[in-house]
Formats: sequence, C-alpha cells, structure tokens
Amino acid sequence: MIKIVAKMLVRADMVEQFKATARELVEKSRAEEGNIFYSLNVSTKDPRLLAFIECWKDQAAIETHNATEHFTSILPKLGAMCEEGLPVDLFTEVEY
Amino acid sequence: MIKIVAKMLVRADMVEQFKATARELVEKSRAEEGNIFYSLNVSTKDPRLLAFIECWKDQAAIETHNATEHFTSILPKLGAMCEEGLPVDLFTEVEY
Repeated sequence: MIKIVAKMLVRADMVEQFKATARELVEKSRAEEGNIFYSLNVSTKDPRLLAFIECWKDQAAIETHNATEHFTSILPKLGAMCEEGLPVDLFTEVEY
Repeated sequence: MIKIVAKMLVRADMVEQFKATARELVEKSRAEEGNIFYSLNVSTKDPRLLAFIECWKDQAAIETHNATEHFTSILPKLGAMCEEGLPVDLFTEVEY
C-alpha cells in the first residue's frame, strides 16, 4: 500500500469552490479498484490549507489513477485555485 | 474525527533506531480507546523523511493521547533523533 499526502494552499476566495470541484474527484477516486481510501481534508488551524490524504493498493494503482479522466480533467481546475503548490509526499507504512 | 500528519526528518544514522523506538508508541496508541488509526510511514523518495499519519475520534482523544505515558516518554526520544522538526498538521475531513 502507498499513502499520499498532497497539501495545497487554496486562495481564500476559492475554498468553497475548491471543495465543490473536488467532490467528483473524491467520489470517482474512491470507486477505483485500486483505491483503499481517499479523502479531502481541511486544516483545523488554516481553512485555506487543504490536503488530499489517500491510500492506494500499489504503484500501478496510482499510475492508473493518474491517467483517469477524472484526475486529468479535475486536477488542473483545482491547481488554478491554489496560491501555492506544496510538496506531494508518498509513503509506505512501517510494518511492525 | 481528526487526522494528524506529523512529518519528521530523521538523522540518516538514526532511522532504524527511530523506527524501533517508535514501535511501542505505535502499538500503545493503537490500543487507545479514542484512536481510529495510527501508523508510522516512510517516504518512497527519502528514507529519512518519516511521518506519523493518525486519526482520532475527537480533540479530547488527542488530549488524552498527548498526556499518556507512552507519548510523553517516547516522543522526546524520537525528537532527539531528528535533524529537523517539521510542521504538524491537524485536519478534519470534508464530508460530501
């Protein structure tokens, strides 16, 4: 499994539109076969700081996701509402 | 529910010791009544970049967690193995 944390600083006047636009991306990503979980989250301290927190079965599932129509069409719209692109981190869980 | 993403840049020579020391924190945190999930994760790009990705029932569960013996005794040990403390983000999920 691979987790993704993708933070974005959204323009203050665009936050509600960002959330509304992301809805289709969230719903269609959750429906993908390789998705474990997929969520949009908002910072408790800064309402402009949003983060997609996701989990995928493997790297192939991420590549399939990145090529979907919902990803390639919606992500640029979301990007245009951001003040700043922040680093996207991919993680694997430490198994004990 | 409140999610926490706490990233840490660990000293290169301390990464294995960090993971070993964190084991008790992970196991005892998962056993807390207010915990939804709790994981230690390592970046796929930089083995020194680790992140706790956690989910708690509510703010009270986080406050209980922050006061536990396992948190207050183990976190300083982990902090001493880090090169850099990175911002800790708390999020609530956007519900659609």
